[in-house]
Amino acid sequence: MDKDNRTTWQETVANKRLRQQSCIPKEWVISLPLDKECKDIRNTVLTCGLLSPRELEITSVSDVGLLLDKLASAEWSAVEVTTAFSKRAIIAHQLTNCLTEIFIEEALERASQLDDFLRQNGRVVGPLHGLPISLKDQFCVSGHESSMGYVSWLHKLAKNDSAVVKLLRASGAIFYVKTNIPQTLMWGETFNNVFGRTLNPYNLSFTPGGSSGGEAALLALHGSVLGVGTDIGGSIRNPAHFCGIYGFKPSANRVPTYGIVNSLDGQDAIASVAGPMSTSLSGIKVFMQAILSARPWRIDPNVINKPWDTDGYALKQYGEGRKLCFGVVWDDGIIKPQPPVMRALHTAKTALEKAGHSVIDWTPHKHAELIANARAVFLADGGADYADALTSGEPLIHSMKPDADPNQVPEFRRPRDPLTAYQLWQLHKQRRELRKEYFEVWERSIDSTDTGRPVDALICPVSPYAAVPHGEKKSAVYTIIWNTLDCPSLVLPITEVNAELDVSVPAHEFRGADDEAVYKLYDPQLFHGLPVGVQIVGYRGEEEATIAIAELVEAALKASI
Amino acid sequence: MDKDNRTTWQETVANKRLRQQSCIPKEWVISLPLDKECKDIRNTVLTCGLLSPRELEITSVSDVGLLLDKLASAEWSAVEVTTAFSKRAIIAHQLTNCLTEIFIEEALERASQLDDFLRQNGRVVGPLHGLPISLKDQFCVSGHESSMGYVSWLHKLAKNDSAVVKLLRASGAIFYVKTNIPQTLMWGETFNNVFGRTLNPYNLSFTPGGSSGGEAALLALHGSVLGVGTDIGGSIRNPAHFCGIYGFKPSANRVPTYGIVNSLDGQDAIASVAGPMSTSLSGIKVFMQAILSARPWRIDPNVINKPWDTDGYALKQYGEGRKLCFGVVWDDGIIKPQPPVMRALHTAKTALEKAGHSVIDWTPHKHAELIANARAVFLADGGADYADALTSGEPLIHSMKPDADPNQVPEFRRPRDPLTAYQLWQLHKQRRELRKEYFEVWERSIDSTDTGRPVDALICPVSPYAAVPHGEKKSAVYTIIWNTLDCPSLVLPITEVNAELDVSVPAHEFRGADDEAVYKLYDPQLFHGLPVGVQIVGYRGEEEATIAIAELVEAALKASI
Repeated sequence: MDKDNRTTWQETVANKRLRQQSCIPKEWVISLPLDKECKDIRNTVLTCGLLSPRELEITSVSDVGLLLDKLASAEWSAVEVTTAFSKRAIIAHQLTNCLTEIFIEEALERASQLDDFLRQNGRVVGPLHGLPISLKDQFCVSGHESSMGYVSWLHKLAKNDSAVVKLLRASGAIFYVKTNIPQTLMWGETFNNVFGRTLNPYNLSFTPGGSSGGEAALLALHGSVLGVGTDIGGSIRNPAHFCGIYGFKPSANRVPTYGIVNSLDGQDAIASVAGPMSTSLSGIKVFMQAILSARPWRIDPNVINKPWDTDGYALKQYGEGRKLCFGVVWDDGIIKPQPPVMRALHTAKTALEKAGHSVIDWTPHKHAELIANARAVFLADGGADYADALTSGEPLIHSMKPDADPNQVPEFRRPRDPLTAYQLWQLHKQRRELRKEYFEVWERSIDSTDTGRPVDALICPVSPYAAVPHGEKKSAVYTIIWNTLDCPSLVLPITEVNAELDVSVPAHEFRGADDEAVYKLYDPQLFHGLPVGVQIVGYRGEEEATIAIAELVEAALKASI
Repeated sequence: MDKDNRTTWQETVANKRLRQQSCIPKEWVISLPLDKECKDIRNTVLTCGLLSPRELEITSVSDVGLLLDKLASAEWSAVEVTTAFSKRAIIAHQLTNCLTEIFIEEALERASQLDDFLRQNGRVVGPLHGLPISLKDQFCVSGHESSMGYVSWLHKLAKNDSAVVKLLRASGAIFYVKTNIPQTLMWGETFNNVFGRTLNPYNLSFTPGGSSGGEAALLALHGSVLGVGTDIGGSIRNPAHFCGIYGFKPSANRVPTYGIVNSLDGQDAIASVAGPMSTSLSGIKVFMQAILSARPWRIDPNVINKPWDTDGYALKQYGEGRKLCFGVVWDDGIIKPQPPVMRALHTAKTALEKAGHSVIDWTPHKHAELIANARAVFLADGGADYADALTSGEPLIHSMKPDADPNQVPEFRRPRDPLTAYQLWQLHKQRRELRKEYFEVWERSIDSTDTGRPVDALICPVSPYAAVPHGEKKSAVYTIIWNTLDCPSLVLPITEVNAELDVSVPAHEFRGADDEAVYKLYDPQLFHGLPVGVQIVGYRGEEEATIAIAELVEAALKASI
């Protein structure tokens, strides 16, 4: 209950939903009756009758580089591209509830200016000229809300663009929608009291993952080809994997996060990072190159003063990429991956070996300790940060299950006693020592490779499963490890679950409740058709090399089909 | 009282002092009677009769590049260079009490190996071949103590070299002595219960500054030409300024600090950084280039993955340095600098203008807020870190005054209530916003320059005074600001106090007790002859450009004499 105007939080939410609905052009509302039994709605986007053939052609492009070429050559105007993706985004929203803020008129106005500029000057304003880019709700766009799904944060209009939005805008990007997240962000699914739950386009009974779940659902349906997410424990990578798209978590402090809204703000030890999510690897590269070439450290005081590294991208330190050696994380010893994930790893391994690279087994080193350290840091405030945002009366969400028992709080979300600053510093020390150990192990892998170098990159599951039914997502052990170590990690889609190939395996000795639950959850028929990706993990601070290596893996995969 | 073996902390200290004395070759003990009235003992080093003409020639070199050339060409052997500097360091120690650990035999053994290597292979092992490098006591050398002046840390022998020691050693450096620091490090003077007090070679009644005070005293007496210090609020820069040498505080996480002993360890928000102190600017450059070219990020998980930047050093973003615009911080509004410091700033300004550069006034932006933020972070543990190290029974030092009243604790050292992790995060947020504001002000200075760029670098006092009598050092406001903002800052010696030129000025309206005390402390006769430097402050993360700009300032100063 808001004491000043006696509006309940539920009323504030109802009002916001009306306001959101009013941003949707009426002619873009799906009028065909939908098949309620149809869980995989990817085809519905195409058949709902709203997209013209031209719009279908434009929005069917996955390759961001190709789209940028068509925009730069004026073969497609920014207005028609923006219209097409806006329409498709609105369709995606009606099917998966993936959007928060919608401002298409503003986008079209900007698109028109960009078309004029190109026509008058014969050149683009920047490398992203005319490209519609979707934004996770955390990113502020001047004049719009960034409620992050908190009722008490509604009605606050951003005075400025977030730093990364500023850079993208100056590069020619067009903003049209923002996307849904879970309350507090610290979940691997997407549900909050303001915007509700986002669904997975491959199966509406499944979660798209989180916290950048709205982005992933939108991208999977080609309502966008390039979006911006954030990741502190897997929030870009899990949704990318769950929805069959590309996602990249850079090392900390390369992509600006200045001026975004966030949870646990000021917690800098294991930093929340911003990164691209895309329908193509070219989208990942284009984004990183545009940002890192724009001197981002000049507008974000946390960003490292290091431009896009062409030598890094050329793999100068890696023998130009002619022969690499990969390490595969088959099992982190905490949660055993399900059969489709194992097959994805094997698929990558086989393709790389066929392409002349070598692939060795990687023995995880103290993953449990690293993850426990991160969790202790994230819970160090004893819940004070969340409490600060829950002043409207809306309840703290304790579970992502649709019919949740409020007493069933997952272990990783259970509040702990607040720590002192001194105790927090001890965790920082511990993390430093664990990182040092891990990288020493990595350096010593030089004894096991045939390249004269340590292992060049790791191939790692993103999750022990493909997407899971709402509420079933467990702790993000396979992703959080790379946040704690601060290594760049790129999610590459590899395959889809195949009930015939991915048969159940006999039970192993369970390492704990989550491991047991994950084993028991697997059902080939239930998961059939869901996408599966892997993480390509590079050295700390080597974003450019990691992208180049991922390109090489993708080429190997394509060649081996 | 140590309960196990019933040794008092005083006995442990007495034992350590005997052990230290036993490391000094007997023939290097000064036997000539010293003039007790003589306060400036710089000449005593030359006249004490211990250094041969050849040793005087070798140790009179200031230019580290020149010394390295003579070593690389075998004109001077590593053994004779190491012998000469070791002897001179021992003399310096007897006059100023600047050393903690002494291991000359080991140094000479290494020097002999290096001489052999050069003779046999006709090449140097690395860019620092044969150079004796002194280390602040925090840096661990395998097999030696790093007590940091804590009684309870004595007798712990380092199992490994600190990361930076490893890199320097691999580059050909020779380690022979470690240098004194204040208890807890968080002081601008140098005194602890184990090693006692270090004195300023220009005037033994004055402090050499701190916390890298032992380094500065040693370098001022040419007992070393290159040393390594650390700086979290001015600990490299104040001593450099007080002792007339060069000192460089890089931005955080470029020079490794992994594996050093430290205070407030785990406090990463305003990080303690390592950096060079030297008798020449070439020493600063040689050190930074050697470290940054050795892939330091591979052995320190906090170091930024960015090698020595040749474009940065070539001032590519600064019009190749042909015409720069400097901003001068004349007065931070907190403590007004004394007349000699003002003259040093004017000297730099005049020289730069004469060399064709422009110099404008800089208006400090929220320095008080930035400093208050840093202080709150440093005191966030409520003293828990210090208490952890004071288990031997030795008392916490509350004042640097020789005849201290234990109740007179300086304001910046007064303990505060411990903060929670959440409160600490709020300070991190505040610092980020203050940094952002400051850099925006800096960017906007483009409107006041004649270069088409914002101000290229700042020229700032190091302290409001030259060196002060023991116990008189106030809070390090002019240095701590650049730690909070994380800007590289290089101390360049400019002049010496001249009683005739630097006459007292009428009192201004005092801003507080420290400001008043600093004004009243000034006495032209008392300060006459003490060195005065300035800080050259560059952009965050631009170590290479800052060094190049400092070289340019030094050239202008030389040309204008």
